[in-house]
Amino acid sequence: GALGGLGLAVGLWRRQAGLAAAREDEEEKELRQRFMAPPVSGLRELRRRRRELRSRMELLIMETQAEVCRALTALDPGASFAVDSWERKEGGGGISCVLQDGEVFEKAGVNVSVVSGLLSEEAARQMRSRGKSLKAKDGKLPFCAMGVSSVIHPKNPHVPTMHFNYRYFEIEEADGTKQWWFGGGTDLTPTYLNEEDAVHFHKTLKEACDKHDPKLYPKYKKWCDDYFYIKHRGERRGIGGIFFDDMDSPSKEEVFQFVKSCAKAVVPCYIPIVKKHRHDSFTPEEKLWQQLRRGRYVEFNLVYDRGTKFGLLTPGSRIESILMSLPLTARWEYMHTPLESSKEAEILEVLRNPKDWVH
Amino acid sequence: GALGGLGLAVGLWRRQAGLAAAREDEEEKELRQRFMAPPVSGLRELRRRRRELRSRMELLIMETQAEVCRALTALDPGASFAVDSWERKEGGGGISCVLQDGEVFEKAGVNVSVVSGLLSEEAARQMRSRGKSLKAKDGKLPFCAMGVSSVIHPKNPHVPTMHFNYRYFEIEEADGTKQWWFGGGTDLTPTYLNEEDAVHFHKTLKEACDKHDPKLYPKYKKWCDDYFYIKHRGERRGIGGIFFDDMDSPSKEEVFQFVKSCAKAVVPCYIPIVKKHRHDSFTPEEKLWQQLRRGRYVEFNLVYDRGTKFGLLTPGSRIESILMSLPLTARWEYMHTPLESSKEAEILEVLRNPKDWVH
Repeated sequence: GALGGLGLAVGLWRRQAGLAAAREDEEEKELRQRFMAPPVSGLRELRRRRRELRSRMELLIMETQAEVCRALTALDPGASFAVDSWERKEGGGGISCVLQDGEVFEKAGVNVSVVSGLLSEEAARQMRSRGKSLKAKDGKLPFCAMGVSSVIHPKNPHVPTMHFNYRYFEIEEADGTKQWWFGGGTDLTPTYLNEEDAVHFHKTLKEACDKHDPKLYPKYKKWCDDYFYIKHRGERRGIGGIFFDDMDSPSKEEVFQFVKSCAKAVVPCYIPIVKKHRHDSFTPEEKLWQQLRRGRYVEFNLVYDRGTKFGLLTPGSRIESILMSLPLTARWEYMHTPLESSKEAEILEVLRNPKDWVH
Repeated sequence: GALGGLGLAVGLWRRQAGLAAAREDEEEKELRQRFMAPPVSGLRELRRRRRELRSRMELLIMETQAEVCRALTALDPGASFAVDSWERKEGGGGISCVLQDGEVFEKAGVNVSVVSGLLSEEAARQMRSRGKSLKAKDGKLPFCAMGVSSVIHPKNPHVPTMHFNYRYFEIEEADGTKQWWFGGGTDLTPTYLNEEDAVHFHKTLKEACDKHDPKLYPKYKKWCDDYFYIKHRGERRGIGGIFFDDMDSPSKEEVFQFVKSCAKAVVPCYIPIVKKHRHDSFTPEEKLWQQLRRGRYVEFNLVYDRGTKFGLLTPGSRIESILMSLPLTARWEYMHTPLESSKEAEILEVLRNPKDWVH
């Protein structure tokens, strides 16, 4: 009777639990293969609303993170990424992957974040100053922001630093309508100029852009040169790439496809350059120049970078993930001036007067 | 006749030229003894208007620069200061003294600047946000600013970094009235806490303040703790000292005398601490912690420091002199957390919760 029924019920529950466990094992396996950690929104939730752009973008940034981490680890076999999943008490969270002090890479960080909540007054002010009319409801602007961002600082001064970031933003206005836009970019910061590398990098980006619209590369190449400008030095941070923000046309789907192409271009842009130079020999003087250029990288990121500033201003943001972009080591020498027609002067010239690398 | 007269005239001119040359030799000698370089406004001009506060302040900052440079050189005999006099095309100039890669000091900069011209719109906006009502004449605000500022980064992690800055500001408003104020401070940034040093440093500053008004030290000690706050880290830059700005009472003369006492306290505040620890032994781990703290120093200076921001915003300012405050080397490690009850945790505790060092 009662006990038998209980036995049957327990048996059923066990069978179901077994099936659920098997399903979870499957999911676990899939997660391990595809991603560095379980996605912030949860795999099941992402599957449930798989047609929504937010879900597709979250899957894309997770895949990009894993792709880049795998490609870097393959080139630096002794090193491995530390993976931290974190939550933001105001809503959302992220996954930070950092490789530190490897043989090839001094510091490589690939960060995913998916956050939501109410826009801070300061952040809203910054966005309005970029021309957005954000009509708040009782002073509140619900937002959702997600992105993948990464900075790779290699040890060898003949291997350039690379940065990329692809992000999606949604803000709900007082009348319920949603403003949305994409932003992003990929750019290269070499210690020494190698024209072949510069051409390869820009050409790969141009091809990714051209598939969508031949007007995009020239526009976003210039935007990149303008954005990564260290005003007080009169120099750009690096030799550029592409940069864009507030992209909301021709359509959500088309912009997403463009962003996807860019994200997929990160590995082919950069990895061949690392492979080519990771064993190059270098002198202590070349290492020193790299350290001085790292100092300039810090200056740009702390004084000008919009993403860093937005992060430092956003309550509850994870400082370690934001400042992960800073190099492991940097140097500032008073009045350091390279000799005329030296290799150091050659790269400075290009940082002062950006060139077109592909036509 | 004519030729004889000419001979006489030439003889006279020669004698006068000889006297002038002798006078110049004397001045040269005096300059070499008292200052690191000729003052921006010229010694003769300063003598002519010797009763004006601007002249007295310029002499004070020149003397302070020389005093500090001499005291540092005495402790690091192999090293010497590079001295650069520079002009600002918009008006004024400065003298930068930098010692780099000495045996005791990694990087020590002592900078004097005396600039004048028209306030930039951005600088005026910043000052108004601090409560100043600046009535401009045709949008123009003539100003004069002078100061001495210095950052000393020693090599040994048991010798703290020290910073000081004393400055005077004058702005002419539309109706011809002049607004003026003094600002400044001296503060200490140790890598490891040494209570005895902290007490000596604060006590010396307190004594300098108390001569003028016993209310000053407590007020400016707190202001210092509040000002050197790295908000995104929830830490102060160091263990403080004193900091003040917009000081314009009880009178110009009395504030000047206070500033003079503070400037004269710099050497007795700091030099005994350097002497005491410059030969302390240290481990590679202690050096590494110093480098991480240097990273925080860079974060404060580039993200928050008002002087640095003002400099980066002021057209024609000398970037090398402004960024001279940055350490020679710095380091950023992802998620570095000191062990509980370690010496590293001990200093962090004090940076998070400032203490009173003298009562």
